Amino acid sequence: MRTIKMTIAYRGTRYHGFQRQPNAQTVQGALEQQLSRVLNGQTSVYGCSRTDTGVHANEFVLHFHTEREIRCKNLVRALNGYLPDDISVLSAEDATSDFHARFDCRGKEYLYRIHCHESKNPFLTDLAFHYRRPLDLEKLKEAADAVVGTHDFHSFCAQAKPESDCVRTIYGTSLQRDGADVRIYIRGDGFLYNMVRIFVGTLLDINEGVFLPDAMPGILAAKNRLAAGRTAMAHGLYLNRVFYTDEVTDSRFGHL
Amino acid sequence: MRTIKMTIAYRGTRYHGFQRQPNAQTVQGALEQQLSRVLNGQTSVYGCSRTDTGVHANEFVLHFHTEREIRCKNLVRALNGYLPDDISVLSAEDATSDFHARFDCRGKEYLYRIHCHESKNPFLTDLAFHYRRPLDLEKLKEAADAVVGTHDFHSFCAQAKPESDCVRTIYGTSLQRDGADVRIYIRGDGFLYNMVRIFVGTLLDINEGVFLPDAMPGILAAKNRLAAGRTAMAHGLYLNRVFYTDEVTDSRFGHL
Repeated sequence: MRTIKMTIAYRGTRYHGFQRQPNAQTVQGALEQQLSRVLNGQTSVYGCSRTDTGVHANEFVLHFHTEREIRCKNLVRALNGYLPDDISVLSAEDATSDFHARFDCRGKEYLYRIHCHESKNPFLTDLAFHYRRPLDLEKLKEAADAVVGTHDFHSFCAQAKPESDCVRTIYGTSLQRDGADVRIYIRGDGFLYNMVRIFVGTLLDINEGVFLPDAMPGILAAKNRLAAGRTAMAHGLYLNRVFYTDEVTDSRFGHL
Repeated sequence: MRTIKMTIAYRGTRYHGFQRQPNAQTVQGALEQQLSRVLNGQTSVYGCSRTDTGVHANEFVLHFHTEREIRCKNLVRALNGYLPDDISVLSAEDATSDFHARFDCRGKEYLYRIHCHESKNPFLTDLAFHYRRPLDLEKLKEAADAVVGTHDFHSFCAQAKPESDCVRTIYGTSLQRDGADVRIYIRGDGFLYNMVRIFVGTLLDINEGVFLPDAMPGILAAKNRLAAGRTAMAHGLYLNRVFYTDEVTDSRFGHL
């Protein structure tokens, strides 16, 4: 039995997230349908993560098992031929038999895209959050830096119970601007439900003066979702990279 | 009577080009409909150019006349509120009464986007031509340079009559690569019907060995559409900039 590690990218607009659901279009559902067709037999995949409705992935890793002897290169080509335009297989390779896309994952990097301009961008409608106010990135960098390190992220989790383990390590954040195109990166060993969207929403609230730039430590300390800011819209969010080595902790993050 | 110069951007996928047509969805039709609504009276716009079905514009200039006293900033805001997501007004300003978006235009820059990779890009389906073969940009740069200058572009015009004036001046070309993202720029004083698409298609034919890299001068000299290569797909093409000054002739083009 082979274990195959596959990397895909998808535009999440049409999907109710990655994870298979009855009566809802999902990336996993669409992928398994075509994979089973190519491999001539029902095939289940195991993803590295869930993603919310409308969230995109520049890189998403999954694995599956098969007895088929198809070459990985041909599998990629055949699958891309069948998949809809908004899901693409980037690569596939044989992995060790115990490889698990989720349990072996050492960390992830998320990207949040903002189109910061008075006018909308007709090419980014569902691909970046349209924000009409000026963004003070210097101020927000100070705030973003405060989440780096190991913290209890209860305040940045939707639907966490008081007893949930919300301790995660953030290795770095980076805020970049290229004209109207603003990109917020965050890299860590794991992320809670809606954590990146609440993080970005809190930054936007800081930008608007709802919180002061030095509010982050207090928000973390509160361990209460109500202490943090709003949840940023899903369509600006991308799972950007998935790591299976310690490269995720690279301190040069932000300079890549 | 005011003359207003307006700059818009649009994703051409859903439209049968810019120009108004009976029984077909066009950018001009959609724009005039909403502009007439905002200005409370039937308003016709005059565009700098036509574009083909599926072609996009990062910058497209038009003008129109109105008696209304609305401030340009408010006009932009109101119009963007009514327009569909794939058309955006970038700016509007009062112009001299004799300003004409088409006749005063000193030149244009087109961009052709190619996603050069084995796998498709789910975010660029209708925004870049997906090309699976390697592209030898050094070879193509030599070929592209050969069209710079003043030439008879009969060979690069669809549907030109023998007696048509097909003399145009190309100020520069630039071929750039960023990973799988290849961008071909061409700037000139004017462009014939399908000229950029035939130019790019001929470059792709040269890449595939249909023509030699030094074939361009001979193709130009033939003054015959059949001498040139294929017509590249519309959805990779963008009207990128529209010039009303001599900046279009800037020799530093390609280094911008």
